[in-house]
Amino acid sequence: MEKEAITAYIEENKQRFLDELFDLLRIPSVSADEKFTGDVLKTAGVVKSRLLEAGCDKAELVETPGHPVVYGEKIIDPGLPTVVVYGHYDVQPADPYELWDSPPFEPVIKDEKIYARGACDDKGQMYMHVKALQTMVETGSLPCNVKFMIEGEEEVGSSHLAAFVRQNKERLQGDVILISDTSMISNDHPSICVGLRGLSYVEVEVTGPNRDLHSGVYGGAVANPINVLSKMISSLVDDKGRITIPGFYDKVAEVPVEERAAMNSAPFNLQAYKDDLGIDEVMGEEGYTTLERTGIRPALDVNGIWGGYTGEGAKTVLPAKAHAKISMRLVPNQNNEEITRLFTSYFTSIAPAGVKVKVTPHHGGQPAVTKTNSLAYKAASQAFAEAWGKEPIPTRDGGSIPIVALFKEVLETDVVLLGFGLDSDAIHSPNEHYGVFNYFKGIETITLFYKHFVSLKS
Amino acid sequence: MEKEAITAYIEENKQRFLDELFDLLRIPSVSADEKFTGDVLKTAGVVKSRLLEAGCDKAELVETPGHPVVYGEKIIDPGLPTVVVYGHYDVQPADPYELWDSPPFEPVIKDEKIYARGACDDKGQMYMHVKALQTMVETGSLPCNVKFMIEGEEEVGSSHLAAFVRQNKERLQGDVILISDTSMISNDHPSICVGLRGLSYVEVEVTGPNRDLHSGVYGGAVANPINVLSKMISSLVDDKGRITIPGFYDKVAEVPVEERAAMNSAPFNLQAYKDDLGIDEVMGEEGYTTLERTGIRPALDVNGIWGGYTGEGAKTVLPAKAHAKISMRLVPNQNNEEITRLFTSYFTSIAPAGVKVKVTPHHGGQPAVTKTNSLAYKAASQAFAEAWGKEPIPTRDGGSIPIVALFKEVLETDVVLLGFGLDSDAIHSPNEHYGVFNYFKGIETITLFYKHFVSLKS
Repeated sequence: MEKEAITAYIEENKQRFLDELFDLLRIPSVSADEKFTGDVLKTAGVVKSRLLEAGCDKAELVETPGHPVVYGEKIIDPGLPTVVVYGHYDVQPADPYELWDSPPFEPVIKDEKIYARGACDDKGQMYMHVKALQTMVETGSLPCNVKFMIEGEEEVGSSHLAAFVRQNKERLQGDVILISDTSMISNDHPSICVGLRGLSYVEVEVTGPNRDLHSGVYGGAVANPINVLSKMISSLVDDKGRITIPGFYDKVAEVPVEERAAMNSAPFNLQAYKDDLGIDEVMGEEGYTTLERTGIRPALDVNGIWGGYTGEGAKTVLPAKAHAKISMRLVPNQNNEEITRLFTSYFTSIAPAGVKVKVTPHHGGQPAVTKTNSLAYKAASQAFAEAWGKEPIPTRDGGSIPIVALFKEVLETDVVLLGFGLDSDAIHSPNEHYGVFNYFKGIETITLFYKHFVSLKS
Repeated sequence: MEKEAITAYIEENKQRFLDELFDLLRIPSVSADEKFTGDVLKTAGVVKSRLLEAGCDKAELVETPGHPVVYGEKIIDPGLPTVVVYGHYDVQPADPYELWDSPPFEPVIKDEKIYARGACDDKGQMYMHVKALQTMVETGSLPCNVKFMIEGEEEVGSSHLAAFVRQNKERLQGDVILISDTSMISNDHPSICVGLRGLSYVEVEVTGPNRDLHSGVYGGAVANPINVLSKMISSLVDDKGRITIPGFYDKVAEVPVEERAAMNSAPFNLQAYKDDLGIDEVMGEEGYTTLERTGIRPALDVNGIWGGYTGEGAKTVLPAKAHAKISMRLVPNQNNEEITRLFTSYFTSIAPAGVKVKVTPHHGGQPAVTKTNSLAYKAASQAFAEAWGKEPIPTRDGGSIPIVALFKEVLETDVVLLGFGLDSDAIHSPNEHYGVFNYFKGIETITLFYKHFVSLKS
């Protein structure tokens, strides 16, 4: 009965649910660019109003040194469980605009997909939770309390969220934190992300002579910072694809054989993966599959390199300096600050006598796994099974959402990554889109999560 | 008698010789920058007039697809030997202007040095030959014929000189080619450059995936073009500083022990060298000294590298491409075209399966040695000994002057590199200068060369 009422309500309000999302998508809430600051604030205000319309008892904009956090709640009975929803209302820049087939802030539906910046990441996924609340309120089926924490700085590193969470620790207490900001394998293979890698990111500078030299006059006698940097980088990973920094693997949690087997049973077509990337061969740590390499194993990538003459034609310079940006993806139980220290110490130690090396850390984040044996995970699994007709597969994403570790540490609350996007949604890229089917099916799945979670808790 | 007349003439005309050079230095004949094209042409015209004033029978501007070559000659007797002088009237760009202590095209004398762009390279050194001719003509001591070939594109690769030389092969016949475009060890240690390295210069591109990827999602499973390029570069030189390209050393002429001993007896202070460059240690091929490493051994330097994100802060990109500019300095009897082929073949062969590699050759040049047992070298040596009071030391420069090999090949004429600059003259850099002493002593030395050369030939 209750479930029928819910699906009926969603069905009746489909056009309104889309129209409201489109209104949000039309506001260019690009947090990275100051010229959109007014739009970011306007979006926060709209989200606050929508929370109140959806049934929240109260909602407010909480100021931070950056963009405000929208906080809202509906407390129906302090004795009942509480679901905390995290999402973000800011979006990535839409550049380059010329690669979009339709303007990024004029949402349109084509081939059953909503095209707009933020359609999936994260306005579309965040707004499903607002509409799920409304659906439950209007159909008299909300079984517990709800709190919303929707930030406006996720695309610029969530710089002020840690302080907000620490300052509002009491107010944010709950029994589970739901985040819809990840993707599933496919609409045929629903999945739940249960692991995210951490990040250590450094910038290195290698200095040789005190000025750019003529490579004819000095070449062969003076250490060339680019040659040296190349050699240092190449010595960070061995021929078996293992990172050579002493102590790097000491805390890496070995994943049990059964869990690896489960990961590798997920639908994955290596040839399609290679074809999509236009590569002849994958490359990585010996003894692990591609899904394992990105899911449960750390990695080291140079994200940028520069030095010497990079213009047209030829210039025979032996440059004074060379630079690189190097990042390491980390897995449980590596600690990003410790890894940054190990990197710095090792990288400095392998510099030859003819150069000086400087290592500057950038931002980082801890790896995180979410429990697969919690009531919350079980409820999510049941909700997926009921809505999609298939048990969801637990997967591990290679990327990082540093706030997940923060929530676990400060709030001590289990997190469930209830993502409904697809890898092909082109988030952060031109022509970002989100399936209309996923939007409505996601709303339904969320309401089912509440039902199963409260049922399991009682 | 004759020598006294010459030194007296130079002494009497010092101020005029300086004033005339200053007039040349005031014209910004920057061949690399189109906005100075008028000035380059104006300079060519002034050089032509000065050749006629100095005593040439005829002088003309020979058109090329680029800047003209100034050709001049004074044939006193076709039966006598002929000296061919090569020099250039164009200069390097003067940027960055703000680092000059005085404006680059307003020559001034400070501490007995002429400060101006081109003061040494090559207006100052080239104009010594014009004034040496005038001195000999006016003092009735010119012992042979003279031809001048002064080009305007040396600083942009002498693109049209090869065609000019081939087309004017007959007109350029002579017994020796004199070039003053190199430096001496010091005013206390006159030296003659007898070797120049050749050059093979390539640009490489490593392509991985067909688009920039998120390094979190793909890192560890997909070959990163920067990591790969770093590894490929580092494998081009081994731990003993030897280039690993198969066949690279096959044609390298081993220099006899006595010649190496002579090289190493040249005044050279390793600590002063390191102090000047601000480095703790030199680095290069095992078994060779610093002078040998730049003089008689090949070298491989990365002149530029770029790829991925190089802006402020952190971006987690696994880039589609990485690039580098790589040059090799060559020694006799290496052939630059062959070396470029060997590099291309080897570099392509070491690319792992996950990437594609493209190698694009830039300009190159053949290595050159000038004979130390020729009459011309002997005459130069005697001229130095007489003018400077010391036997000159034969040295090998690490840089390249590709036209030297061209002259030897097409004109089959011995070249003598009669350079009077110092390494500290800051050519190609702000505050280029040239010693007033070197300017006048060079004019004297050139007249003595003519005397000894004709005497040895007869």
